[in-house]
Amino acid sequence: MSWTLTAADLPDLARGATLLGTGGGGDPTIGSLLVRQALGDRSLTILDPDELADDLVVIPTAQMGAPTVMLEKIPAGTEPTLALRTLEAHLGRVAQATMPIECGGINSMIPLLVAAETGLPVVDADGMGRAFPELSMETFAVYGVHGSPLALAGERGETVVIDTGDDDRQMEWLARGVTIRLGGVAHIAEYAMSGAQVRATAVPRTLSMALALGRAIRLARHAKRSPFEAIAQTLSTTLYPHVRELFAGKVTDVQRRTRDGFAKGWAQISPPDGVGQALEVEFQNENLVARLGTDVLAVVPDLICVVDAESAEPITTERLRYGQRVRVLGISTPELMRTPAALAAFGPAAFGLDVPFVPVETRVVGAPAAVG
Amino acid sequence: MSWTLTAADLPDLARGATLLGTGGGGDPTIGSLLVRQALGDRSLTILDPDELADDLVVIPTAQMGAPTVMLEKIPAGTEPTLALRTLEAHLGRVAQATMPIECGGINSMIPLLVAAETGLPVVDADGMGRAFPELSMETFAVYGVHGSPLALAGERGETVVIDTGDDDRQMEWLARGVTIRLGGVAHIAEYAMSGAQVRATAVPRTLSMALALGRAIRLARHAKRSPFEAIAQTLSTTLYPHVRELFAGKVTDVQRRTRDGFAKGWAQISPPDGVGQALEVEFQNENLVARLGTDVLAVVPDLICVVDAESAEPITTERLRYGQRVRVLGISTPELMRTPAALAAFGPAAFGLDVPFVPVETRVVGAPAAVG
Repeated sequence: MSWTLTAADLPDLARGATLLGTGGGGDPTIGSLLVRQALGDRSLTILDPDELADDLVVIPTAQMGAPTVMLEKIPAGTEPTLALRTLEAHLGRVAQATMPIECGGINSMIPLLVAAETGLPVVDADGMGRAFPELSMETFAVYGVHGSPLALAGERGETVVIDTGDDDRQMEWLARGVTIRLGGVAHIAEYAMSGAQVRATAVPRTLSMALALGRAIRLARHAKRSPFEAIAQTLSTTLYPHVRELFAGKVTDVQRRTRDGFAKGWAQISPPDGVGQALEVEFQNENLVARLGTDVLAVVPDLICVVDAESAEPITTERLRYGQRVRVLGISTPELMRTPAALAAFGPAAFGLDVPFVPVETRVVGAPAAVG
Repeated sequence: MSWTLTAADLPDLARGATLLGTGGGGDPTIGSLLVRQALGDRSLTILDPDELADDLVVIPTAQMGAPTVMLEKIPAGTEPTLALRTLEAHLGRVAQATMPIECGGINSMIPLLVAAETGLPVVDADGMGRAFPELSMETFAVYGVHGSPLALAGERGETVVIDTGDDDRQMEWLARGVTIRLGGVAHIAEYAMSGAQVRATAVPRTLSMALALGRAIRLARHAKRSPFEAIAQTLSTTLYPHVRELFAGKVTDVQRRTRDGFAKGWAQISPPDGVGQALEVEFQNENLVARLGTDVLAVVPDLICVVDAESAEPITTERLRYGQRVRVLGISTPELMRTPAALAAFGPAAFGLDVPFVPVETRVVGAPAAVG
C-alpha cells in the first residue's frame, strides 16, 4: 500500500536505513538535514511496488563516493535533481517516480530530496536491499535491467552521461573515475526502468522496513526494552528474518584509507574483558566479512552491522573509533540476493574474498546466539 | 580555396603535421594507416575556412591520451565517428563538417578518418596551430567557443558526454580521468561550432600547410637539397614565418614517464663533439621549453621541433632515443596564439613554467642562426 512520509519520519528512517547500510551508505545526519530542508512541512508519496503501473517511468537517484569524503564534502543539494534532469534529457523521457538504489543513511534520503524538489513520488524498494560499494552490485542488473545510461552531476553544475551498454562494471569503473575527479563525491541517476521492471528486479519495501526498524529501536529505548529484541522482532516478518549476534566487545583498532574512491580498511573488536580472540571486520565502504580467527561468522551479501552495545545505534565504517563498545549483528539477506547470479555480482568473490558464501543463519557455529 | 585529398597525400601530410605537432600529437604511422584503410581510392573534400557558410555545423574530432600509450593501444577505428554521432545525438544537430583540434601525426588524421567513414568534408584549420597536451588549450576557447558538451568514445563502444558549461579546464580534467580509465586513449568530439565561429577562433589552413611542409621536405631530400631550407621557405609565406635552429647535437639522455594520463619528461641533447653545454628540452606530450643552461631558447606556445639531423624527419617525444643525431628547430606561432588571452591559456605559466614568453625570433641570442 502506498503511504506518505513527513519530516517527522526522517530520524527513524535514517536510523533504520543506516542499520541496513551495513556500515556504508553514508552518514544519516547529512542526508536527513538535506531532506528536512527541502521538504519543510510537506509530505512525500511513497509508492508500493505492487501498485506501480507496468509502464511507469522510474529513475533511481543516489550519491556515490567514499563515505569518508561524504562526511566532509557537503552537497549543495541541487546535484541529484540535476542528474535526474540530465538523464531525462538524454533518454527523451520524463521520470514519473524516483527510487533508491540502496539502503543507507545517505542513499535512502537522496531520492526523498529529489522527490521534495520535483514533486515526484518515491518507490518503496531498492536495488541492493542493503548498501554495496559499487554501482554494478544491483539486483536490477542481476535480473536484467542495466545501469546505462547513467547521468552524474557535480557540485559546480558539471554533468556527465556514461553509456557502457550492458557492461555495468565498466559503467561503475568510469563513473568512479569521474567521481574521484569531482573530489570524491558525485550524484547520479541510473537504472531507468519501468514499473514492471521494478517488480521483477528490486528488493521490495526496504524504505518502509527501514522506517519500521528505526521506529522500533526508538520505541524500545523509550520503554527501556531491549532495542536488539525490537530489531529481531521487526525483521522476523520481513524478507530478512534471521538476526544473529556475532560478537560483543570493544573496538580496539581501526585501519582506514580512502583509496581508489573507496573507504577501505578493517576494524578489530576485542572481547570486553580483553581475554580471547578478537573479531576482525573488513570493509570497502560497507562491512564485507566478519572473522574470528580463521572462522568466518558472516560474509557479503549477508548484512554485518556494527551497532552501539546499549542503544543499538548503527555505526558506519567511517565513524568507527577506538574504545567504542559495540555489538556486531549478522542479518540474513533476502533469497533473491543469494541466487548464483546474485552471488556472482556481490558475493564474496566479487570482493576478492576467498570465502564461500554460507548463510549467516547456518554459519554461526555452536548455538547461534539469538539476539536479545 | 577548397581542395581534395587522396591517400597519396597522406605520407606528406603526416610528416608535416608531425613536425607541427612539436613532439606530440601522436605518431603519424598509425594515423596514416587508419585513414588509408578507410579511404581506399576515394578522395576527401577539404574546405577553406573563408568559404564556409556562416551557419555550417562543424564538429571537430580527435584522439586524446598519452602518446606513449597511443603507440601500443591501436584504435579499432570506429571510435571517433562514434564520438561524433554521440555528440550529434546529444546536441540534436547533425555535423556538416569535421575539423582537427590540433596539428599532429594522429590528430591531423582522425578527422580525415571520420570524413572517410561519414562522407563529411574537413575544414582546413584547427584550434592549436600545433599540438598541446590539454583540451582547454584551444584558440577556440581563447576566442569564445567552449569545448562542452564533449563526447568521448572507447574501443568497446563506451560513450561519455561531459558538460562543464564554459569551464574548459574542468572539461579537460574530467575527460582525462575517463581516458585514463579507458586505458589511456580515447576518441572525442567537442567544440561544436558554426562556420562563422571557425573563422573567428581557428588557426586557418594548417592542414594545407602541413601537407606543403611534408611535401617540401620530401622533394628537397629527393633533389639532394637541404630539407631545412625547404622548411624555412615553405613557412616564410605562412602565419609561421620565423624558423630558427636552436641546437644541433646528439640525444644523450631521455627521461619519460606516463603519469596522470600524459607522457612527461625531458631530453638532453649534447653538442656533437661532446664539448660545451647540452640543450635540455622539457615536455608534457609536446615539447614545452628548450634551455641551454639558464638560457631559455624557446618556450610554448612557440614550436620546438626535434628532427633528424640529416633528413629533417620529425621525432615525437615518445620516439626520442639515446644516440639520435638531431637538430632542434624553433618556429614562431601565429600572432593570434601570442595575445595575452592566448598566453593565459597555453603560455609558459599554463604549464607551471616560471619563464616569461619571448618570441623565438627575438629570443635566440647572438646572431640567430638561420636554418639551412
